[in-house]
Amino acid sequence: MRIDIISVLPELMESPFQTSILKRAVDKGLVEVHFHQLRNWSINKHRQIDDEPYGGGAGMVMMIEPLDKCISELKSQREYDEVIYLTPDGVTLTQKISNTLSIKNNLIFLCGHYKGIDQRVRDLHITKEISIGDYVLTGGELAACVLADSIIRLVPGVLNDEQSALTDSFQDDLLSPPIYTRPESYKGLDVPKILLSGNFAKIEEWRHDEAMRITKEKRPDLLSK
Amino acid sequence: MRIDIISVLPELMESPFQTSILKRAVDKGLVEVHFHQLRNWSINKHRQIDDEPYGGGAGMVMMIEPLDKCISELKSQREYDEVIYLTPDGVTLTQKISNTLSIKNNLIFLCGHYKGIDQRVRDLHITKEISIGDYVLTGGELAACVLADSIIRLVPGVLNDEQSALTDSFQDDLLSPPIYTRPESYKGLDVPKILLSGNFAKIEEWRHDEAMRITKEKRPDLLSK
Repeated sequence: MRIDIISVLPELMESPFQTSILKRAVDKGLVEVHFHQLRNWSINKHRQIDDEPYGGGAGMVMMIEPLDKCISELKSQREYDEVIYLTPDGVTLTQKISNTLSIKNNLIFLCGHYKGIDQRVRDLHITKEISIGDYVLTGGELAACVLADSIIRLVPGVLNDEQSALTDSFQDDLLSPPIYTRPESYKGLDVPKILLSGNFAKIEEWRHDEAMRITKEKRPDLLSK
Repeated sequence: MRIDIISVLPELMESPFQTSILKRAVDKGLVEVHFHQLRNWSINKHRQIDDEPYGGGAGMVMMIEPLDKCISELKSQREYDEVIYLTPDGVTLTQKISNTLSIKNNLIFLCGHYKGIDQRVRDLHITKEISIGDYVLTGGELAACVLADSIIRLVPGVLNDEQSALTDSFQDDLLSPPIYTRPESYKGLDVPKILLSGNFAKIEEWRHDEAMRITKEKRPDLLSK
């Protein structure tokens, strides 16, 4: 898998991709991530990539020309499965979307900044608009990191323990049951006896019941899907 | 505002906090962010902080003792408004939650990792469990960055253009209308004439109508809130 990330602040994304699972995925050659500083496609010597909105109002708008040039150049080099714009008014990211994207070959992520991008870029190039949630961030860079992390960890070979990913929350539309580790007792707080019983059939039953109980209590919407 | 972030991978969060708005907020003295490497509270010389789950199963569990020691030490130094655990089975983050948290003084963010934390830590210390969305990440670190960004940009004085934050998506439960900037025409794609009219009353009306249309089309759930 190859991901090209277009941004005015690629340096914001350095440490997440140099650490942990994302670094390991890149080091193993399972994923290539390329950052593109949008200002390199700027139309003037001031490296300008944004301008004031037509019709007035607060905030700056990312211009069509640098974005069109950058995306067109990438598209001329290879075929992309999706050109994704990270934006709060996109489709809300779910585990299902991450699953689907994890089997693609080439993806472009465009990080919005300021007030967003000129609408004509959306009309011309964007195939998918994704929001990571109903809240506003300074820019699309953290959203791009989140989307990359949720996808890349699903690429075969990235996680050491594939079973672990399959039993995560959301993969079966249930939240996880409570988990415990040593010691058995800590400041008067004890691990539930069933987990120490060695009866794995009973333990699985308890875990399923707890997952159902917690999902009903915290996220009944997941059960009605 | 002071935020204490507890993690086994604090280095993952370096670049987001050294860039852009988060850096500016820290430089201006509006926000203090302190990272705490959980392994410093480990109980043995191997710096161990996780162990296998009682009852078997895949994935490791973060132990109660290092977490209890670390959180208790912080709590002994000052009063915290919230001890927040970033976890996929928490309450889903919304702009309203970020608004509420942006006026707090002291917050702890605990980044989960591996399969999660021993349930007894949740029972003992955690006052709020937050999920940034219905997808699984490698760890809570990116979620902590997202939560910090969404909160810190609302702290008075952080954004240069306060008006801009107020007209963002979600602050009025409507998505944003389309935006455009120069040039007026690009490869045959034109800016809507109304935005060039100079009639600001009409422009505001058009923007509201477009915001309604787009919200109805993409996110009807926001209108029924």
